[in-house]
Amino acid sequence: MNILFDERLDGALPSVDREALIAHLQATLPQLTLLHREEDLRPFECDGLSAYRVLPMLVALPETLEQIASLLETCHAWGVPVVTRGAGTGLSGGALPLEKGLLLVMSRFSRILEVDPEARIARVQPGVRNLAISEAAAPYGLYYAPDPSSQIACSIGGNVAENAGGVHCLKYGLTVHNVLAVDILTLEGEHITLGSEALDTPGFDLLALFTGSEGMLGVITEITVKLLPKPEVAKVLMASFDDVEKAGKAVGDIIAAGIIPGGLEMMDKLAIQAAEDFVKAGYPVDAKAILLCELDGVEADVHTDCETVRDVFEAAGATDIRLARDDAERATFWAGRKAAFPAVGRMAPDYYCMDGTIPRRELPHVLKSIAELSATHGLRVANVFHAGDGNMHPLILFDANAPGELALAEEVGGKILELCVEVGGSITGEHGVGREKINQMCAQFNPDEITVFHAVKAAFDPRGLLNPGKNIPTLARCAEFGAMHVHQGQLPHPELPRF
Amino acid sequence: MNILFDERLDGALPSVDREALIAHLQATLPQLTLLHREEDLRPFECDGLSAYRVLPMLVALPETLEQIASLLETCHAWGVPVVTRGAGTGLSGGALPLEKGLLLVMSRFSRILEVDPEARIARVQPGVRNLAISEAAAPYGLYYAPDPSSQIACSIGGNVAENAGGVHCLKYGLTVHNVLAVDILTLEGEHITLGSEALDTPGFDLLALFTGSEGMLGVITEITVKLLPKPEVAKVLMASFDDVEKAGKAVGDIIAAGIIPGGLEMMDKLAIQAAEDFVKAGYPVDAKAILLCELDGVEADVHTDCETVRDVFEAAGATDIRLARDDAERATFWAGRKAAFPAVGRMAPDYYCMDGTIPRRELPHVLKSIAELSATHGLRVANVFHAGDGNMHPLILFDANAPGELALAEEVGGKILELCVEVGGSITGEHGVGREKINQMCAQFNPDEITVFHAVKAAFDPRGLLNPGKNIPTLARCAEFGAMHVHQGQLPHPELPRF
Repeated sequence: MNILFDERLDGALPSVDREALIAHLQATLPQLTLLHREEDLRPFECDGLSAYRVLPMLVALPETLEQIASLLETCHAWGVPVVTRGAGTGLSGGALPLEKGLLLVMSRFSRILEVDPEARIARVQPGVRNLAISEAAAPYGLYYAPDPSSQIACSIGGNVAENAGGVHCLKYGLTVHNVLAVDILTLEGEHITLGSEALDTPGFDLLALFTGSEGMLGVITEITVKLLPKPEVAKVLMASFDDVEKAGKAVGDIIAAGIIPGGLEMMDKLAIQAAEDFVKAGYPVDAKAILLCELDGVEADVHTDCETVRDVFEAAGATDIRLARDDAERATFWAGRKAAFPAVGRMAPDYYCMDGTIPRRELPHVLKSIAELSATHGLRVANVFHAGDGNMHPLILFDANAPGELALAEEVGGKILELCVEVGGSITGEHGVGREKINQMCAQFNPDEITVFHAVKAAFDPRGLLNPGKNIPTLARCAEFGAMHVHQGQLPHPELPRF
Repeated sequence: MNILFDERLDGALPSVDREALIAHLQATLPQLTLLHREEDLRPFECDGLSAYRVLPMLVALPETLEQIASLLETCHAWGVPVVTRGAGTGLSGGALPLEKGLLLVMSRFSRILEVDPEARIARVQPGVRNLAISEAAAPYGLYYAPDPSSQIACSIGGNVAENAGGVHCLKYGLTVHNVLAVDILTLEGEHITLGSEALDTPGFDLLALFTGSEGMLGVITEITVKLLPKPEVAKVLMASFDDVEKAGKAVGDIIAAGIIPGGLEMMDKLAIQAAEDFVKAGYPVDAKAILLCELDGVEADVHTDCETVRDVFEAAGATDIRLARDDAERATFWAGRKAAFPAVGRMAPDYYCMDGTIPRRELPHVLKSIAELSATHGLRVANVFHAGDGNMHPLILFDANAPGELALAEEVGGKILELCVEVGGSITGEHGVGREKINQMCAQFNPDEITVFHAVKAAFDPRGLLNPGKNIPTLARCAEFGAMHVHQGQLPHPELPRF
């Protein structure tokens, strides 16, 4: 696929004397692993959004807090931008390097410092893998709830930076709801603890502000997360529908019935077929949509909820409802869902994965509109997503080698995100903005709002050296991108004069 | 009680020509209710922290967004500080007026704009009472979870400003966990929507930043809250202990057993006696401490949890365990707890209510230390609090008319808060910092951290006109207060050099 990186931003950054910087770092930090030869830099040129590739100027793999503090001090003094990278699994290009920047790779901060089963917390370094926390907590019957599909590889530091989600976030919340405290270093070398183990922290809620800030406010050096007891039982219901909109409506009906499933996922016909071809999960290939609904908790509770969900599915017009017989079949049902992205990937040379979020009640309408966009633009779109929390992942299928198809896919993707914003949703649910969705931020927010973002950024990083060009667009960029601020379809208060 | 207001801050504010300002506002906003005569201003001289009293320069009771926008525009242009007030029930002096400032009273913004049972949200104006939201949602079997004890009177706008809590926040979260979106006006007249109905909002999490910011970042004009389905059943267990520390340990044991009660409250001997004298709740007056544990959810689940909690209480050495027979007895058990503050108030001419939060595992240690502080200083301290989330409310009994007792109560209170910080907790759980705890902020945070708070404040309010002197102390104030930063007993990373 083409390299989509916007060279303008990097070009606007000041240039430093690369050789002098290398010599300075080698002299001041002789123990630091510093990569500077092209073959060493190449593995770091992209993150999980592999369409965007940039060779970093330098890569540092620090092993101590002193090394990070010293690196930041140098970058601050020399005016070198810093991009922090966890495991590099992010899907929005948040860890995309800068060709005039230092890439700070946190993979060596991989120690679990403490698991306290009584307080139900774990204190970990940022490079620890998401799943490794649950593995360390397992002997106590505990686990860390947010489960991005990359959880075997992604780092908890990256999870905090992107406010990562996952199948179980409907019930258990996003990363921001499962983190108690974060230690950071600012670019100016201030060491700050955000949050605490206590219920609430006075002053402004900087922990929540920092979570999802995509490396723009500071470098994470330690994280304290909540651990939850493993649910006693989990059951999965699969419902088939002959109409996508009916399935969409059933999602809202389940929540309206007072049930918060552990997971509530939807797949449309194209996704069902792809997954079934790939993993033989036993999916109904003639259905227009399926819903997978996982209910977890104590036995009696789960039993009651299963009955309620079954009733809701029937009332919503499900053509077939199956309860996984045992844990093996439950795993099979989920295997199809978990493999859906690569399965769809087999159906076309390329796909573009979106990550818009909408209020649940808008699901039927938005699914219909996506089908219309797909038809009018002649690109197939598969839908596989976290339906319960309205977090959609339309996969736009295309062939980057066919003239114009990449641009067409981007156009369809942009329109889908704008549609999400129009109905009161947002352009990202769990993947972050990164480099990928920076233009759509101009649709999500008005200039006043973007100005506040910049002011907050400057409160932490006045020189703008931390991950520039990600997450928050400049007003100039929005102006260039076009006046497309839609903000839930209207000015929030038409009666209020705008200043 | 004495007027404790620190005149230095107000004295440092610029003076405006009050008569000219009144004339200007009356000319530009002829429909606005503007109070300026002393007898009209008097009712607004304090909030729920009645020890602090200041007569505001002016009080405005706007009825439209245009009036607020115009008022803010004038205050910005004239350099007049603005304190926003909801229902005035706050306990930390967050809505304390300034004698050179305008008090913006939001009580006329009291409309419930929308209840959407399917999306389970309510959209309300900031002056709506907390309980009124649950009342409006009741026909749909829904309610708004955070329940500060002032919920019959306090406003949802004030709840957002202070990030209010309540008995049920252990299970259902603080205000920040139950608010989806807030519309604000900045002092510069920008209209900004923070958050959305969607799962996540891209960019920085300004909604969480704003929640609990105590009127320092903007004026709330509209709020969208989550609604929850009412639990099917609720049961309450009351356990008696012959030792406060045993009760404190039992709290941690319940959570460690994997149970999150709807409420988990503790009262010590003094509080038990006071409440029993006052409301005849059937409490064991010979016990050293009681725990009230409410379990809610579906029938079967609650039944199982009750058995588990009973086992935990027994293992922890409870001398008596009683399950409320029915809803009537459950209400009686709670009546004593809810009346505990006024009940304790009958035992001494004055009391000083603290609001520190600590990790649950520290409860036995901190309760013991409070008893020691009480003994060495000769002031009785009653403990009535949200034990489950470690949110303590020591009530220090004293007589303001006895020479030196007020100062002694303040000293004991300050020491208790510093103790909370030392064990990794915080100086507030749900009451906010306001004016009351501004000195203790210097203990909670280091100068780097306070500098970041000020920078964030300046991002929204560069001139510092919104609620100055609350929530965030100046560094000069901290220096004057003394070098008492303790930050969890040590520098967070002793190995890291401080810059």
